[in-house]
Amino acid sequence: VPRTLKLTIAYDGTDFAGWQRQATERTVQAAIEDALLPIDGERVIVTGAGRTDAGVHAAGQVASIRLRSSIANEILLRALNATLPADVRVLAIDDAPEGFNAQFAAKRKTYRYSLWSDGVVPPALRRYVWHIPQRLSVAAMDEAAAVLIGTHDFSAFQASGGDVQTTVRGVLTSRIETMTPNAATGDGLLAGAVAVPVAMLSGRLICYEITGAGFLRHMVRNIVGTLVDIGRDRLAVGEMRAVLESRDRARASATAPSHGLTLWSVDY
Amino acid sequence: VPRTLKLTIAYDGTDFAGWQRQATERTVQAAIEDALLPIDGERVIVTGAGRTDAGVHAAGQVASIRLRSSIANEILLRALNATLPADVRVLAIDDAPEGFNAQFAAKRKTYRYSLWSDGVVPPALRRYVWHIPQRLSVAAMDEAAAVLIGTHDFSAFQASGGDVQTTVRGVLTSRIETMTPNAATGDGLLAGAVAVPVAMLSGRLICYEITGAGFLRHMVRNIVGTLVDIGRDRLAVGEMRAVLESRDRARASATAPSHGLTLWSVDY
Repeated sequence: VPRTLKLTIAYDGTDFAGWQRQATERTVQAAIEDALLPIDGERVIVTGAGRTDAGVHAAGQVASIRLRSSIANEILLRALNATLPADVRVLAIDDAPEGFNAQFAAKRKTYRYSLWSDGVVPPALRRYVWHIPQRLSVAAMDEAAAVLIGTHDFSAFQASGGDVQTTVRGVLTSRIETMTPNAATGDGLLAGAVAVPVAMLSGRLICYEITGAGFLRHMVRNIVGTLVDIGRDRLAVGEMRAVLESRDRARASATAPSHGLTLWSVDY
Repeated sequence: VPRTLKLTIAYDGTDFAGWQRQATERTVQAAIEDALLPIDGERVIVTGAGRTDAGVHAAGQVASIRLRSSIANEILLRALNATLPADVRVLAIDDAPEGFNAQFAAKRKTYRYSLWSDGVVPPALRRYVWHIPQRLSVAAMDEAAAVLIGTHDFSAFQASGGDVQTTVRGVLTSRIETMTPNAATGDGLLAGAVAVPVAMLSGRLICYEITGAGFLRHMVRNIVGTLVDIGRDRLAVGEMRAVLESRDRARASATAPSHGLTLWSVDY
């Protein structure tokens, strides 16, 4: 009888055409399925909690698999990481109940979107932040972000071409945070190792976090595009509610680029 | 009369064949000189404080230039960063006294070498850390690192083929630090934006820092190779002094890979 396992996975989405296996493109799902092939002998299907788009990263993507091999989880984790390319890592492997499906069982997902406001982007962060040359108003953005908390029709933030049954979604948290480097140690944003000394940093890292049971296509990136326009004073704070209530995609701002977005965690 | 300027520069060395301009390879010096060309009309020579090897990063490399253009420093900084590839950033441009040469005027340089001990390397750090699968003994490494402080003949840690007049160098600091993620915010090593949640981290980031007036070829990487062998108990702590005093390259361990090394800062 195959065992059911829960995999927690991190990846740098830069060089992937997204999560989902495709005929010819490099994808995360295909990379993990290919790494499992020599272990189980047959193709193992890896079911991800969320199908991240091309360029989107994950810090805590979750996937489920059914495995015939009786290999110990700790050994499997080492074997997978020894085979996988360095831009995908399996962080943890846990036993899951029979029938566990990472996609359908997911209760909540949290995304984070990273912005670098003003100044100069440290080279080590260039793949993970959207650089906004202006100084963003964090207070205005946070006020607008809070408007989205609750259950709403998010049509205004849905990519065209979506064919879901309902565009109503529940948002549990929606907030802006400013990330501060570790001034105590004089270290930069990458804990002293690889980024830039604090004294040399210009501009700052701003993070948008949103948690919900489910998201429409490009919903987070469309929200971020609108928040950034509010932060750089192209839109008034009050416009967030007007855009939301309009249910009109044309009212929201342009979609933020994929490389600032990270699937941060999935709750079950 | 040309002005003399001091540039502070950060780069991700992964995709560069080092600092120094070469006929065909992509180098940091050539990238900056090429970006200056349209501004000054003629080739401007960029003199770096240290010629980092292929794959080595910089958080605070310093370079000097002489510029005829009267462009304001702040505008020059923006123009350069708009032209340069995203893996090189000019962090600051300051006026320097006539005759300032970033190489000859440098008083001290600090390098950091980043190790990931045990566990799984977060994908966002993979270009910047050397992964050691074992759990390293930080106490033993720090004790051995301290042996190097002072003025010594560092022949044992010099790459073969060096032709310097003296192999005596002064080391001001030589120590190991463990980097701790921000447990207070639950964020990972990359300040919450792009790495891995703290709860998901396994293994840890260990940083070796060394400051001195000058270094022999591959000296830092050869020291790190020996420190890592002490940390994984292949060599006794006391061997560091024995290797140093032997002045014999064959006694030191293998050279640590370039991608863990960062030129952290240069003092004048």
